[in-house]
This record gives sequence, structure tokens and C-alpha cells, in this order.
Amino acid sequence: MATYARPVERLISELSRLPSIGPRSAQRIAFHIIRSRKEEALALAEALREVKERIRPCRRCFNLAEGEECDICRDPRRDRGVICVVEDPYDIGPIERTGEYRGLYHVLGGALSPLDGVEPEDLHIAELVERVRNEGTRELILATNPNTTGEATAMFIAQEVRELPVRVTALASGLPVGGDLEYADEVTLGRAFAGRREL
Amino acid sequence: MATYARPVERLISELSRLPSIGPRSAQRIAFHIIRSRKEEALALAEALREVKERIRPCRRCFNLAEGEECDICRDPRRDRGVICVVEDPYDIGPIERTGEYRGLYHVLGGALSPLDGVEPEDLHIAELVERVRNEGTRELILATNPNTTGEATAMFIAQEVRELPVRVTALASGLPVGGDLEYADEVTLGRAFAGRREL
Repeated sequence: MATYARPVERLISELSRLPSIGPRSAQRIAFHIIRSRKEEALALAEALREVKERIRPCRRCFNLAEGEECDICRDPRRDRGVICVVEDPYDIGPIERTGEYRGLYHVLGGALSPLDGVEPEDLHIAELVERVRNEGTRELILATNPNTTGEATAMFIAQEVRELPVRVTALASGLPVGGDLEYADEVTLGRAFAGRREL
Repeated sequence: MATYARPVERLISELSRLPSIGPRSAQRIAFHIIRSRKEEALALAEALREVKERIRPCRRCFNLAEGEECDICRDPRRDRGVICVVEDPYDIGPIERTGEYRGLYHVLGGALSPLDGVEPEDLHIAELVERVRNEGTRELILATNPNTTGEATAMFIAQEVRELPVRVTALASGLPVGGDLEYADEVTLGRAFAGRREL
């Protein structure tokens, strides 16, 4: 016999499938939902339904979009001559929050990883090259993750567009602001040295 | 302009309201849901709906129940002469998992805390006394939390049933099994001394 009534066990089990929610959190969340007002739980249920029914990839940049194109691609104030290339849609939020970037994006859908079976044709690389060719892109900022697969992906893309008249850049590596030099790993510190700038 | 399409922002916001889910986890979970199969998200939405529509407090013990009474109260194999008193429904799971207990439960719905405005009439204490009176309860095991409010609640209940022919016990305090004496706090260690047993 299960410890809790079947609908409770079912909710705990569904919640446990979500990332970063362990069995204890799932139970705590389930009990919170049971205690809270019915409207709150139904609002979450409706938000789940809506996101699955209305959200699809932007046909231009593969960011999440409610219609055919995402809000950023549709925004006439964005600089259409610059494309920032990211692995996932959720890399866009942090970049937008810097307030430093006013160009467009291109979401690859992951990073190259032959060992995991992720080949160039599994990512939206061909579509990116096509955009650079057709949209008169001046600069391609490669903002893949600063790790092995991300950097391999950036190198691959740089190769793919080498014949096109586009400037290709990558985000700087270095010490995180507010971080402590004592605790920096040696690869980051090495990059910080290599990329040191004049003051 | 929000960073993500409106339905995505809405889902992130609804997820952020849940306990132990910060804004970053909410975003991670939302993107997981967007990536995952539609059926999975709808199963969670349905589980939320079902739990709000089908779960109510057991009319006997105030555990969570799908019908009028919870599975434990309905189970004929449980010892009906013993009631274990807990603060919340989610205290039942850990006790059930010990496999040590085969009696019934009574969920108080919290602990006495006059400073927070939780008075005896806010908890299911009167119903507990009524049960002890009517169900021929032999033993009441007070398993409120081992903290100030939990222990005050246990003391209050012990007083309330002192005229009734029922044995009143409380869970043992002491060193956690697998714990390290060196790191035990002094209150726990003091309790472990006071409750020491013959070997």
C-alpha cells in the first residue's frame, strides 16, 4: 500500500520527474499544492497546458516563440546585422539581462558532441549559415558554453562561415567579476592571463 | 519586453511560487517541460487538477484522503488501539517507511504557537480527545516535531487526555543513528544522556 492517497502519490511521482526536484522536494511541493488555494494549482496546470500548446521554435532563430517568430526577431529595434549564437534558448535570458546586446540570436539546439552522437546536422548550423548568407550579417558572436563541446561547436561554425564576409567573434574568457583569484581554476586563470588587456 | 514568450514567462512565474523552487530552477524546469513530450506535461497538469479535486482531509484522522477516510484508517490490518499524533500529513510517510508502526494516526494540522496566533482550537486537538474517548485507544504516541512548538503541543495534549485511561508516550530523543557524537548539538546530546538505556 502506498503511503499517501493515489492522487497524491501520482502528483509526487509526476513532480519527481522534473529536473532539480528530488523525491523530498516533490513531496514538499505536492503538500504545498494540496494546502494552497485551488485556483493556484489550476493556474499552474493551465500554464503547463498553454506552454505545450502555444510555444514552438521561432522559424528564424529557433528561440521559443508564441507565434511563427519570436519576440526578439519581431522587434524592429534590434540590430539585424549581428547574430549571437547560443546553444539553448535559456542562454538568451542571461545575455538579455546584461543589457549589452541589441542584436538577434540563433539557437543551435545543443553543442557538437560526436561521442553522444550529436553531429552538425543535429544542430541548426545549416540554417545559421543560410541566415548569414541571406541577412547581410556583419558579425556573428559565438556564445556557446565555455567548455569542450561548446568551443568545438564554435570552431566548427567559424570554419563553416569562413568564406562569407562576416566578422566572427567569441565571448571573452576570464575571471568572473566578484570572484576570488585564489579560488579560480587554472584553466580560467590561464585564459585570463592570455586575454589580459591594457589599462 | 519580457525575455521569453508570454506563455513561457507565465509558466516560470507559476513554478517560482512553489516551495524550494527558486527563479533559476523554475526556468530550468520550464525549459525541460518545453523540450519534453507533450504527454508528460499534460500528465503533470492532470495530476495537479486531480489532487485538488479528489483529495480532502480524512474525516477521522485528517490525513490526506481520496474518499471520506484515508487508506490507513480504512485498512483493517491496522491496530486501532494506538494513535500516533503528528503535526502534518507529511510526517506520516517517514513513520510508515520505518515499518515499525502499525497503528492509526491523527494529524493536528500544525503545532501550538501563540506568537504566530496558533491556538489549540486551530488544531485538531478536540477531535483527537474525542477519538481517544470513543475509540478505546490504549496508547497515544505523540510524534510532534522535536522543537519548542512541537513539544509544547505534546505537553498540551498530554494534559488534555490526563483523565482518560490511555497511555501517553513520545518518541525518544537522542543521537541520530549514523551520526557523529562530535557534531551532535548539546541539547540532543543532553537528551541522549537523560534517555540512556541499559545494554
